[in-house]
Amino acid sequence: MAVASTVPLTSREDLSLAYTPGVARVCEAIAAEPALVADYTWVGHTVAVVTDGSAVLGLGNIGARAAMPVMEGKAVLFKQFGGVDAVPICLDTQDVDEIVSVVTALAPSFGGINLEDISAPRCFEIERRLDEALPIPVFHDDQHGTAIVVLAALRNAAALLDRKLADLRVVVSGAGAAGVAVTKMLIAGGVDGAEVVVVDSRGIIHEGRDDLTAVKAELAATTNAAGRSGGIAEALAGADVLVGVSGGQISEEAVAGMAPGGIVFALANPTPEVHPDVAARHAALVATGRSDFPNQINNVLAFPGIFRGALEARASRITDAMKVAAADAIAGVVADALHPDAFVPSALDPRVAPAVAAAVAAAAASA
Amino acid sequence: MAVASTVPLTSREDLSLAYTPGVARVCEAIAAEPALVADYTWVGHTVAVVTDGSAVLGLGNIGARAAMPVMEGKAVLFKQFGGVDAVPICLDTQDVDEIVSVVTALAPSFGGINLEDISAPRCFEIERRLDEALPIPVFHDDQHGTAIVVLAALRNAAALLDRKLADLRVVVSGAGAAGVAVTKMLIAGGVDGAEVVVVDSRGIIHEGRDDLTAVKAELAATTNAAGRSGGIAEALAGADVLVGVSGGQISEEAVAGMAPGGIVFALANPTPEVHPDVAARHAALVATGRSDFPNQINNVLAFPGIFRGALEARASRITDAMKVAAADAIAGVVADALHPDAFVPSALDPRVAPAVAAAVAAAAASA
Repeated sequence: MAVASTVPLTSREDLSLAYTPGVARVCEAIAAEPALVADYTWVGHTVAVVTDGSAVLGLGNIGARAAMPVMEGKAVLFKQFGGVDAVPICLDTQDVDEIVSVVTALAPSFGGINLEDISAPRCFEIERRLDEALPIPVFHDDQHGTAIVVLAALRNAAALLDRKLADLRVVVSGAGAAGVAVTKMLIAGGVDGAEVVVVDSRGIIHEGRDDLTAVKAELAATTNAAGRSGGIAEALAGADVLVGVSGGQISEEAVAGMAPGGIVFALANPTPEVHPDVAARHAALVATGRSDFPNQINNVLAFPGIFRGALEARASRITDAMKVAAADAIAGVVADALHPDAFVPSALDPRVAPAVAAAVAAAAASA
Repeated sequence: MAVASTVPLTSREDLSLAYTPGVARVCEAIAAEPALVADYTWVGHTVAVVTDGSAVLGLGNIGARAAMPVMEGKAVLFKQFGGVDAVPICLDTQDVDEIVSVVTALAPSFGGINLEDISAPRCFEIERRLDEALPIPVFHDDQHGTAIVVLAALRNAAALLDRKLADLRVVVSGAGAAGVAVTKMLIAGGVDGAEVVVVDSRGIIHEGRDDLTAVKAELAATTNAAGRSGGIAEALAGADVLVGVSGGQISEEAVAGMAPGGIVFALANPTPEVHPDVAARHAALVATGRSDFPNQINNVLAFPGIFRGALEARASRITDAMKVAAADAIAGVVADALHPDAFVPSALDPRVAPAVAAAVAAAAASA
């Protein structure tokens, strides 16, 4: 990645204009009206991609330096798909308070903050505190990017099967960053929370458990109204939808217990929770996180357009309404040509980011 | 300013290579050997331009957002002249401890830290603590960039006048960030500290004063061996060189008291301490900080090449030897064609940054 000037700078006049003395007038204008920084500098179209290196891909806590290739790659995707300038920032601290204060101090330099690869449950507190503290959008992509694309995929899958979201029994396997956000997003998008069952490494999350974090206790209160208990097999018995965001494996026997004609999204990368060929024996529609199978659920469908739209609208935060609008826009790109092997747009589909940006900006404006 | 990808990213294969799953191998290599981050990502050629907005140009404490245009302009100059990718970072804090901890947390993301427009005396402590804490170069340009170019200019001015640096009586007017660094740099470059007199807003700095900060007390101990006291007029009486880095005004009477055939660098911008036409009545050689008079002392002659050289050498800090080498390289570019109106290279001279980079890298390698 590189930085580039968007104006020529070859003559003494260019230099006087872009730097001293010309720049002083721009500084004075922003000092008088701080919001102008978004118009007069690159801040209005720039996002920081921030990590602490604590949960990088499936590699785990590999630290700030080793996380840089992912953040740099992500920054390139921001530019390529959303026209958003992004700066990779890898922090040499994993202390929640320190991360919050560092990112707060950085905020004037950027139009938005994309949090990335920060481990759960720390990521929930970090995002919540930054979202409250900062006047610019804060978005933890591992949570909401995944959740938005899952909602988009489920909308189209349900349409293909002529089912309504509100009638589906959904199992979310995994209660980390992605699992929590997927659950909330699906409910925000129309799934009936009472009929959602979330499973973590110790089994089904229900109100009778005494080992729940605050975030999981909240899930217990808003899902699984029937108070089911047990493991993944008990959760899947009779379910219509499985969303795997756990990284663990799910047996074929458990998947076979789902209701006929169901939907399996097995998103662990590189090894899906259940192999798509196995899933296809028991489900009508299958998606994965991999590019070498049909229907890839890839965050790149969401984050470039979401930030592009939020920045264009000068939104101060990314609301649930903006996230749902993004999911609807992603789904809409292929809604007229749905097929069991193509109900999720390709990660390279150039129509997606502009559609998402427009939908997000409109949702921001109508809030 | 914008961010640009240095590799194509248009096919599914590009995406697999630049992002998941290909990027995981790069992450693992860096996790095993953290120094590889400089080879495998943009970190090795990227500098953060960091300010707290406390002393921006001559505008004063205008804050983080209003400082952004200067930092963005500086980043463009880094790229244009040194081929160094630079990211403007404006911090929403002016607390010294917090600035140190924020920049320390950011350090894995960059190959060097250029501090900018931070007020004195806070800038001295911030730079010292970061220089001690970080494994990458830390450079406060308002101090050392100015000081390096002043030393370069004085080398060539002395050569034009057939004088030796060690024989010159030098007055530095101003004991802020630039004044302190200029004084130390000139002494490191060969000027006799005993014959240097530094003047602040309260007059000549000498060991008898009881109002000195720690930094000024150090200056009192290393300069003005004769224990002169009084104001700028007393300091200039019989002096060979005036370096104005104060922003204040100096009367023609005071300048007239200098020894005949002297040197005046009046660097305040936009209004020099003494107008160059007035200075020329009493001095043989004159330089300013302005682009519309001959012999502009402009930091852009130093910082792009210094960081380029330090990054290429993978230097962990920028030593006095590297700074003196930079000054010699700047002076050397025009040493064969010295003229009273051209003893400082043009800010746009394309030979300067490569010469500085090579000299700095060589000095780093021989340390």
